[in-house]
Amino acid sequence: MTAAGPRTRSERKHAAIVAAATSVFLDRGYHGASMDEVARVAAVSKQTVYKHFASKKTLFEQVMRATSEPMHAALRAAVDGVAGSGDVEADLRAYGQALLREVLTPPVVRLRHIIVAEADRFPDLAASWHRQGPGRTVDDLTDRFAALTAAGRLSCPQPRVAAEHFLWLLIAEPLVKSMFVPPPARPVRVEARVDAALRVFLAGYGG
Amino acid sequence: MTAAGPRTRSERKHAAIVAAATSVFLDRGYHGASMDEVARVAAVSKQTVYKHFASKKTLFEQVMRATSEPMHAALRAAVDGVAGSGDVEADLRAYGQALLREVLTPPVVRLRHIIVAEADRFPDLAASWHRQGPGRTVDDLTDRFAALTAAGRLSCPQPRVAAEHFLWLLIAEPLVKSMFVPPPARPVRVEARVDAALRVFLAGYGG
Repeated sequence: MTAAGPRTRSERKHAAIVAAATSVFLDRGYHGASMDEVARVAAVSKQTVYKHFASKKTLFEQVMRATSEPMHAALRAAVDGVAGSGDVEADLRAYGQALLREVLTPPVVRLRHIIVAEADRFPDLAASWHRQGPGRTVDDLTDRFAALTAAGRLSCPQPRVAAEHFLWLLIAEPLVKSMFVPPPARPVRVEARVDAALRVFLAGYGG
Repeated sequence: MTAAGPRTRSERKHAAIVAAATSVFLDRGYHGASMDEVARVAAVSKQTVYKHFASKKTLFEQVMRATSEPMHAALRAAVDGVAGSGDVEADLRAYGQALLREVLTPPVVRLRHIIVAEADRFPDLAASWHRQGPGRTVDDLTDRFAALTAAGRLSCPQPRVAAEHFLWLLIAEPLVKSMFVPPPARPVRVEARVDAALRVFLAGYGG
């Protein structure tokens, strides 16, 4: 097996452009970013940037994918763990900690902010971010909570409402604040926040 | 008694400028709004606009105040009702319904979006909005929940955490969605949403 990652000259340039664009967009916002600066940071010509990405919007969509895909992969793995061990509380605690950490990763916070700022111009991108983010998380949790309720481990007669409650008890406070105020350098108190949310959730929805 | 409202020529112009600016900013966003258009809509000269408001930012701050003040007044009145009747559940239900309706009023949703979009440029305005909005609500509820806990009517050993939980159980789902996707024309199901949130809150924090 050879190592994964870009191997041809074109693939290497493609990766360099995405890395440069990520840095430029997160630093300057959509409006302030330019294809010229992306080309300079990637050390390629502007023509090369346009050969790989037909427009600034296309390049930004690739930055969205590259920045959010690690989070989505981590959250898919984490939700797979819910109900995996037979200890629902422990599973939800582990999932909640993963969720808080992933959703508040600084590049994700920054990208989310840029997407909200550009929602008038690119309603499709903003809607897609919401669908794949909170929308997907609520869908995944709805399935789990319905199954756990069927198994008598939770009591969620409206599993979608329970999924929304679980998500927002955990994350709404720091998430909403991060829209208005740059997040603090010190991380949110993940364990305490998850424990407090879980206590209320299980009081309402325990089996 | 004469009717309230602006009476001098200057006061009438001031009010006309703020009304015009509200319409222009909410329609076009901060970046897209111009003092020329505000003057045209208000039917005054651009010099008159600048005589009343030294800069576009100052005018926007006035639009923020004019748009959010009715919400803040309604929420202050609503929080005064919590613990007023002796029926905590009924009081919290009435407060929750007022909160959902006020916070999701279309001009407030639109203004919130513009403030988030401009948070890089005007971090002071975004921080102030957060402080006077969710920050103030959590402060007010913290006081009430501490008093209700002291009176044995609720059980909130950490009243600030309980206040955050109450707020976000109620409002996070439609609030966060409204950042990404224009709110639907049909209103959120206020009563059902409040009842579901209240059930979980009281399971966790009931006296």
